[in-house]
Amino acid sequence: MNDTTLTVVGNIVDTPERKVLDNGASVTTFRVASTSRRFDREQSGWIDRDTLFVRVTCWRQLGDNASRCLVKGDPVVVVGRYFSRRYEVEEQKRTAYDLEAQAIGHDLARGSTTFQRNPRAADASPAYEVSDEQMPAEVA
Amino acid sequence: MNDTTLTVVGNIVDTPERKVLDNGASVTTFRVASTSRRFDREQSGWIDRDTLFVRVTCWRQLGDNASRCLVKGDPVVVVGRYFSRRYEVEEQKRTAYDLEAQAIGHDLARGSTTFQRNPRAADASPAYEVSDEQMPAEVA
Amino acid sequence: MNDTTLTVVGNIVDTPERKVLDNGASVTTFRVASTSRRFDREQSGWIDRDTLFVRVTCWRQLGDNASRCLVKGDPVVVVGRYFSRRYEVEEQKRTAYDLEAQAIGHDLARGSTTFQRNPRAADASPAYEVSDEQMPAEVA
Amino acid sequence: MNDTTLTVVGNIVDTPERKVLDNGASVTTFRVASTSRRFDREQSGWIDRDTLFVRVTCWRQLGDNASRCLVKGDPVVVVGRYFSRRYEVEEQKRTAYDLEAQAIGHDLARGSTTFQRNPRAADASPAYEVSDEQMPAEVA
Repeated sequence: MNDTTLTVVGNIVDTPERKVLDNGASVTTFRVASTSRRFDREQSGWIDRDTLFVRVTCWRQLGDNASRCLVKGDPVVVVGRYFSRRYEVEEQKRTAYDLEAQAIGHDLARGSTTFQRNPRAADASPAYEVSDEQMPAEVA
Repeated sequence: MNDTTLTVVGNIVDTPERKVLDNGASVTTFRVASTSRRFDREQSGWIDRDTLFVRVTCWRQLGDNASRCLVKGDPVVVVGRYFSRRYEVEEQKRTAYDLEAQAIGHDLARGSTTFQRNPRAADASPAYEVSDEQMPAEVA
Repeated sequence: MNDTTLTVVGNIVDTPERKVLDNGASVTTFRVASTSRRFDREQSGWIDRDTLFVRVTCWRQLGDNASRCLVKGDPVVVVGRYFSRRYEVEEQKRTAYDLEAQAIGHDLARGSTTFQRNPRAADASPAYEVSDEQMPAEVA
Repeated sequence: MNDTTLTVVGNIVDTPERKVLDNGASVTTFRVASTSRRFDREQSGWIDRDTLFVRVTCWRQLGDNASRCLVKGDPVVVVGRYFSRRYEVEEQKRTAYDLEAQAIGHDLARGSTTFQRNPRAADASPAYEVSDEQMPAEVA
């Protein structure tokens, strides 16, 4: 309840790093940069505005796949839960922001992908199947 | 201004269809189903709630890649501009809803991808590049 | 899990309607229209594009307040869970889309509000309180 | 293009501060805290998880209204463009995150509001008006 959802479209700016925690869970982290652009009438072209940097954390199967498939520079779309944590560095209080990913994909606006589904045992949440007769006609 | 942004995580429920319009622009359309789940305490398991069906439209390079790379059943994440159009069928007024995609990706929570960047000529908006020294240390 | 979140900024286009169900729960419904605009260079002004119509459902305390405070024409911001339902009308299958609101507010971009907090008994989820010393300095 | 949109539901944690810049534009800033909650089965109640702190910036008419109408502690819903800026403090590089608000409202889930529309001259973007006959019947 009250989760804050964030979607970011941008490029991975470092090499994804995978760790295995003491409890056996694996987690992969990397950063994404998303640059806002606007059309400039005088230059008749797109110019860059500011860039949003977001740290992405992905757990278990999602993190394992991300670690294997994503490299620095890749264009991605990421959606997940956005939150902040507080910590101290040399007695200075800091806030770190994290995007805990629910889904990540290589952006098809920037290239092509071939997809290989998880082996069934690895996929805790089975894919949603919809038969043709369930399709709402109006959406057709 | 005032665009409504929507992100959907789900499965493609029909075969993506690509058309070339009279003005030469290409467009690909398909539908995505996203099923909400909640944890049921009595059954100690996840149960399905309602399913959201969304029609996705993707233009030009994004649509061409989507048409080549996506098949029925694929798990995807889609983000874009959500809007509605009115039309008439047999003198009945109807409303159609459309998600005009900005970015689409195969969901790495459900499988693995290999990625091939667009040839440079095809990629109108060049990938954002960030050098290491531009990286904000605090996000590290 | 897997909920689809939608935020809409627009105007209420009908009179909010409140009902009390057999189980005692109250629900209020209304529709919101959100018009996308873009800057037209030839006309040097904003022109309307398409309009998104969304049906909003709000339950219990939120619905009771909405029913009392909102009237047709009011500018609002609404965020909640977006989903679809299927039904039949005269043997035709239809899909209805619903935004189940988590929060609604009169838009301060369009006017001023005076706010009166719910009586404590009515407010199931107490307001989050943060003392000054909990404030992260970096966000200051 | 490529803007990152963020919606936050939470409470204002400091007194909104309004400034007038040299160019005559006014801007109001404040911070919002949004606490995620989850249902704990053992305790049979909601428990707090982490809290997201976001700095909100609002310009011109929206900022003027926010400055007049919002006080510390108020529950609000805010939607806007999310971005980051880099700066240096004592030769340390830092990143600041900002939510540039498009719309803000007192949350009707937490209380009641009375609304007074901007005087017409102050309201650059006139409210969207929809006549009854424009209403799509299917959304009714």
